[in-house]
Amino acid sequence: MDQTPDQEVLDAALTLMHTRQHVSPKRLGDPGPSPEQLAMILGAAGAAPDHGSINPWRLIIIPPERRHLLGEAFAAALAERDGAATGVQLREAREKAVRGPFLALVLARLDPELGPAHPQERIISAGCAIQNMLLAAHAMGFGAGLSSGRALYSQPLRALFGLGPQEQPLCFLSVGTVTRRKPARPRPNPADYISEL
Amino acid sequence: MDQTPDQEVLDAALTLMHTRQHVSPKRLGDPGPSPEQLAMILGAAGAAPDHGSINPWRLIIIPPERRHLLGEAFAAALAERDGAATGVQLREAREKAVRGPFLALVLARLDPELGPAHPQERIISAGCAIQNMLLAAHAMGFGAGLSSGRALYSQPLRALFGLGPQEQPLCFLSVGTVTRRKPARPRPNPADYISEL
Repeated sequence: MDQTPDQEVLDAALTLMHTRQHVSPKRLGDPGPSPEQLAMILGAAGAAPDHGSINPWRLIIIPPERRHLLGEAFAAALAERDGAATGVQLREAREKAVRGPFLALVLARLDPELGPAHPQERIISAGCAIQNMLLAAHAMGFGAGLSSGRALYSQPLRALFGLGPQEQPLCFLSVGTVTRRKPARPRPNPADYISEL
Repeated sequence: MDQTPDQEVLDAALTLMHTRQHVSPKRLGDPGPSPEQLAMILGAAGAAPDHGSINPWRLIIIPPERRHLLGEAFAAALAERDGAATGVQLREAREKAVRGPFLALVLARLDPELGPAHPQERIISAGCAIQNMLLAAHAMGFGAGLSSGRALYSQPLRALFGLGPQEQPLCFLSVGTVTRRKPARPRPNPADYISEL
């Protein structure tokens, strides 16, 4: 590909990037990706830059039959930080775990013993992997989105996923069929993020 | 694109991702991207996820005529951390600044006043932006690479770029024509980074 740049490939890639939009998990329904499609989406993550070949991030899929455990962790995290949380609020926290047909946790592996790559480099690598997955899902016609929130950084979540002390949850990735579209959000003007030394 | 997934677009996107490889700045020569190509590469960055639309990162281009200033900052950073650095080592540090026809610093904007997005979310957004730029450059037939190193986190570098206290340098991005190719590095096996709850 490097030797013979192909205008169609470039156009396809740029169109894919510019038409991708965040889709909230609550606007993602069935069907989700098939096993073959999922293998392509998750395989694209492995093509991210990885300084020192240390695999500085990993993915934990939460299958439908285990979503209730995540819901309990979300509710426990809410109860921990707000002892006055109401039953309705706790139920809403639980319900967040069941949204979207495909759901995975992305986490960074920050153990210094893995190699010299700085923690932020490892998170950049995860970001690159995430973008590959978002673009692959979008190319298949799926909607996808990243989500976070305070429960992500909570002890109940760490305990549920059995995270090591050097593992840091980054975000959730959801993929599915878009049930309700929102207008495209405007992108920043390049002049707003580019300057010259 | 979401409504009518196109097998050719998907194939092109996945091929692009899987054939992209890191190219070190020392293996990047002229020509670099034209102004039109550069606008497409840098414009792709703006299509990254951006929770809260806060522009959590920015790019500072180092034009050829200012590279010597970066070289001085690299040498100053080396001298600061190693008072015994030799003239040869200082010259090598300076020379790193002149490699590759296009060079930009990517930095994260971590000011809490920008919005509620957690610092690591902002670095993930930068990673997504970086991946879009790497893929766009690759689709044009260019080589590209990320580089870091201890000078990136040094005071001389912060001073040169006039970084605010809440701005954090993430990496350099280099783009150019590949002068010397290395064998493709093997990718990780998906089983090494995927598990299930």
